[in-house]
Amino acid sequence: MGIPESVRTGMQRTNALFSSSVVKNGEIDALDNIYTVDARILPPGANLIQGRAQIKAFWQQAIAGLGLKDAKLTTVDAQAAGDSVIEVGQATLTLDQGQMLTVKYVVHWKEEAGLWKWHIDIWNMNQ
Amino acid sequence: MGIPESVRTGMQRTNALFSSSVVKNGEIDALDNIYTVDARILPPGANLIQGRAQIKAFWQQAIAGLGLKDAKLTTVDAQAAGDSVIEVGQATLTLDQGQMLTVKYVVHWKEEAGLWKWHIDIWNMNQ
Repeated sequence: MGIPESVRTGMQRTNALFSSSVVKNGEIDALDNIYTVDARILPPGANLIQGRAQIKAFWQQAIAGLGLKDAKLTTVDAQAAGDSVIEVGQATLTLDQGQMLTVKYVVHWKEEAGLWKWHIDIWNMNQ
Repeated sequence: MGIPESVRTGMQRTNALFSSSVVKNGEIDALDNIYTVDARILPPGANLIQGRAQIKAFWQQAIAGLGLKDAKLTTVDAQAAGDSVIEVGQATLTLDQGQMLTVKYVVHWKEEAGLWKWHIDIWNMNQ
């Protein structure tokens, strides 16, 4: 099903916030506007992580540990599912030595406090 | 949101079919009753794969390549989303030398021809 333009715009705003504020500027508290309060992430090489405080701790460590400098997120496909959205996407990560990684992901989006946020977020590497 | 018991039963039937017919018995055509016709899988270490024929080829190769002998799928959480379901799950894989792998996954389920099937399927390893 198609996604209303207003929802699409909200999703793009959230993705841009992740790239610019969280990854580029290290503003971890911007994750409050990116993940729902009871969000879950399923990172490769780790157990499932639930809750925003734990997710913030994960990203703080992951960004520093990987030397993550940029993350370009591209929606491959987004489908409405009730009042939520399922997105298949691709991310291009830039690490501090300029190495690039291609990551694919699925995000279950929900609206919370007027913002479109990541409620379930799972990814893996293409290589 | 809660999932009707009939849907939960349908999901369990599909998961059991994957373990018993596809993984244990190598009946790749049972995947017709597991994946929707235009399903997508996002396997670690590979590009996104779309369509049932391509998905069958992937699993045939993956089961042989890994020496996969058993896959026990456990639903961690399932949420209704419109007429579909988002499941977070955990799989325990047994390889031919008895090694065990823990995998976590997200599946977007849809009903197709009266069966509950995997429409989007992404996973990664815990270790």
